[in-house]
Formats: sequence, C-alpha cells, structure tokens
Amino acid sequence: MRRTVLALMAFGALAGAVAGIVPTGQADDGATPIFGIKIPPGYRDWKLISVAHEEGKLNDLRAILGNDLAVKASRDGTLPFPDGAVIARLAWSYDPLAESKEAFGHPQSFVAGPPKNGVQFMVKDSRKYAATGGWGFAQFDNDKPADEAMHNTCFACHAIVKPRDFVFNRYAP
Amino acid sequence: MRRTVLALMAFGALAGAVAGIVPTGQADDGATPIFGIKIPPGYRDWKLISVAHEEGKLNDLRAILGNDLAVKASRDGTLPFPDGAVIARLAWSYDPLAESKEAFGHPQSFVAGPPKNGVQFMVKDSRKYAATGGWGFAQFDNDKPADEAMHNTCFACHAIVKPRDFVFNRYAP
Repeated sequence: MRRTVLALMAFGALAGAVAGIVPTGQADDGATPIFGIKIPPGYRDWKLISVAHEEGKLNDLRAILGNDLAVKASRDGTLPFPDGAVIARLAWSYDPLAESKEAFGHPQSFVAGPPKNGVQFMVKDSRKYAATGGWGFAQFDNDKPADEAMHNTCFACHAIVKPRDFVFNRYAP
Repeated sequence: MRRTVLALMAFGALAGAVAGIVPTGQADDGATPIFGIKIPPGYRDWKLISVAHEEGKLNDLRAILGNDLAVKASRDGTLPFPDGAVIARLAWSYDPLAESKEAFGHPQSFVAGPPKNGVQFMVKDSRKYAATGGWGFAQFDNDKPADEAMHNTCFACHAIVKPRDFVFNRYAP
C-alpha cells in the first residue's frame, strides 16, 4: 500500500510536470484545485529547513524552505506546526559538476541544474484543511497549478508521517 | 594536477573534521589561520544560493547560503562578487529517509542527517585577500577553525573556476 502511494506520488509529480506544459483546464486565478493555494510571494528567499536528493524517476536535488513560522517550529521541534506555517519544496535537475568530473575522472560533485519536478507547498490552516491533517497541499509546474488528480495524491502519502504532523523533512542543524 | 588538488581538498576536509575533535594549536580567538576569519553570526538563516551532493569520501548533502550581498550578486550573475559578500557552505550526512526506503523497498529519498565535513566560508575582500583572488577562505569543524594545512588547500582548488570569480556554485533559480 505504501509502495503504491509513493509510486503514485512520484507519478503525480511527473504528471504535474507534463500538466505544466499542457494546460489542463484548472481555474485560471493561479490557485490550485482542491486546496485553493497560490504561489506565496518571495518564497525563494525563505530560510532553509533542509536539503535532499531523490533518486529514481524524480532524480533531483531539492531544498526545503519555510516562512518564519515554519522555520521556527521546525528548528524548535514544535508539533503540530502553527497555523500560518508554510513549507516550500523546490527541486532542480541533478547534474554532475563539469569541473569536478574532469578533475576526478568520474562524477564526484552533483549540483542543482535547471528547475525540475515543480514547486510544492504545504500550508497549515487547521480549520480550512481539517480533512487533510490541517495542511493544504500545492504543486506548481512552470508557475501553473498542477491538476486535481495530482493534488489528490498528496495527503495519502504524507499520512505516512502523521506522528511528525505529516511533514517528511526535519530541520538540518 | 587538478586531480591532485581536488584530492587534497577532499583529504583536507577529512583532516579538518579530525582537527575539530583533536585541537591542533591554532590561535584561540576563534579565527582561522592564514585568513583570520571568524564564524559569521546568524549565517544559518542566510538565503539559499544552491544545493549539492558530494560522493566519495565526502559523501554529504550540502547547502550554499549567502549574505545579502552574495545572494544578490549570485542571482544577478554579477562578477566579480562585491567586497563584503560572504558565501557559506554547510554540509550534512547523506542519509536514506527511513519511511521512503520502507515504502519503495530500496533507498529512494536521501536527506540531510547530522552535520558533517565542517562549515566553510568564502569572504570577499579584494584588498585584504588580494593574493587569493580577493577571497578569504575558512573552515570550521565543530565550531573550531581547521588548521593551517587545511586552509592552504582552498585557493589552489578554487583557482579551477577563476572565470567565475573562484566560486564553484551557481544560483539555483
């Protein structure tokens, strides 16, 4: 079951990437289906929570950023996260650094290339999103909301980490 | 030659990690040898420039953060970096995410574990550090400056990317 859910998540991310190229008829106000979330202004300059690498079809390097409420809660280990906390997941192509490969004779350093697999957000609002653990989920591909099918996969997967208030990442000290 | 230099860098990072455990007699004011750099207060909350993964003996996940001058220059592609720019390299253990491994039956997600391979800084001061491309270099292991031998390896390696003002990383959009 968990394997199916995570496979769906990975598939959903890919489907979302395609959806970013081929418009899928979602509302044109820039908000995601189901959760009605828009891209938070200035999120690229938020503070760092942690970093990760996904293998397999996702094959990316990613950063988890948070607004001030999310970063403070994550750093302090406060659970559940407070209303207003927003977590952002950015991802980029997983590219060997040319200079390093040349110097070592094999890939040694992998760095972030172009954006990949969209941008995702988790928005905490315990009333509005009570049915999904208090979190709203959002994926944008090329700044366009992914489709409803994609957004239906989010919570099922995050339910795996319910004891951590549905958040996979941990603050990197 | 380049291979030797990068191998020295990797070795230096490891030696530095050991030096953090066994004091090596450097000045006890918290400043690094050669460049006289102290840990910049609040650097963990600086904005994100990029992320990376090092294989081999380093085997870590890393984040490149910058103070406002460094982030702006990096984002705008301004070269050389202005005096006052400071770039930070943080790194953590490269750990499989247990929930993901369980769900997929194999490691899929790798996340940042405990801090690893020290914290490094590049400080731009074109006069003070004229002999090393305008950059001062610093490594701290467990908040203690690494030794002089370690700091002697920095510039030789960064010289590989002289056309990018000696900075390996690029801003991840």
